[in-house]
Amino acid sequence: MNRLEEQVQFIVETDKAKNIFRQTYLADAGRKENDAEHSWHLALMAYLLQEYSHEPVDVPKVMLMVLIHDLVEIDAGDTYAYDAEGAVTKQSRETAAADRIFGILPEEQEKHFRRLWEEFEAYETADAKYAHMLDNFQPLLLNDASLGKSWKEHQVKKSQIYKRNEKIRETFPEIWQYMSNIIDRYIESGHVKDE
Amino acid sequence: MNRLEEQVQFIVETDKAKNIFRQTYLADAGRKENDAEHSWHLALMAYLLQEYSHEPVDVPKVMLMVLIHDLVEIDAGDTYAYDAEGAVTKQSRETAAADRIFGILPEEQEKHFRRLWEEFEAYETADAKYAHMLDNFQPLLLNDASLGKSWKEHQVKKSQIYKRNEKIRETFPEIWQYMSNIIDRYIESGHVKDE
Repeated sequence: MNRLEEQVQFIVETDKAKNIFRQTYLADAGRKENDAEHSWHLALMAYLLQEYSHEPVDVPKVMLMVLIHDLVEIDAGDTYAYDAEGAVTKQSRETAAADRIFGILPEEQEKHFRRLWEEFEAYETADAKYAHMLDNFQPLLLNDASLGKSWKEHQVKKSQIYKRNEKIRETFPEIWQYMSNIIDRYIESGHVKDE
Repeated sequence: MNRLEEQVQFIVETDKAKNIFRQTYLADAGRKENDAEHSWHLALMAYLLQEYSHEPVDVPKVMLMVLIHDLVEIDAGDTYAYDAEGAVTKQSRETAAADRIFGILPEEQEKHFRRLWEEFEAYETADAKYAHMLDNFQPLLLNDASLGKSWKEHQVKKSQIYKRNEKIRETFPEIWQYMSNIIDRYIESGHVKDE
């Protein structure tokens, strides 16, 4: 198989991300969002919100990082942010998925995507922190627009949301302020449990 | 309204792209593709296929260009590639949409997106040509994976496909070769009309 054939095979394989559904509803609450839509939204936000990172970020790199960050879910499935049981096996399932899916590509492109995904997962560099902020902020905005539908369904607690977002609190104060205003409104209305 | 509020309003508004459906089916032919999914796929391809452009391209710029290229369809709707009637009013509908949708953003981000979208539409620069190649190649790959379902439904002719892709033929010979091999197979099988 030549390079272009490998690249095309990868492009067609990744089409499956459009059928991996998340727990977040679209803003209009009509249906749940899939991984391809979510990743598109994050890449757009990576450009728009760069000014809120207090550390320098490589925006094009983060755009690519968020475009591919959920591809492993084609094999491993979506693990809900607040699913403690799923979290136990998440890493091994996703590593096997990365081997297979990125492995379709020509070698240097495989390595590049693999490194980007591992950097995202490690959640240590400024770029990975920015990508995670986007990955957490976007569903919160959709949750708010859809009147907390997903939080209500999962009976999410304040402590869970705060735990999940603790690094954002440190690194992106303006974004955290915006997020916590939203969370506070849902605690007040009783749709997020204050515990 | 402060900057972040404007940016959030834009992020939530553009969520509607996930409900703008195209005429192309997903690779598994299960349902039609929406604009957000399509744009995600193009941005990923912008990174993967850069080696096939014989003119230098600014990949991060093209990624952003394709991420936003269909946002005007939130107001203007999707005009099918082979819809001659829709094409007549397409430009005025889309210009009004660009005014409203990009207008939600802080001024310099509005201007940046507007310029990118206009560059895409003008189809003259190397970056715009590369973006259009991706915009044509991707649905062709999905059409092939879904066994020509969309072409059959619209009774598409060889001359229409060739006309739509004439600039690709000149600028991306390897991609055109790959595309024309697919088209030839559908002409042979009678699913695309040889006229």
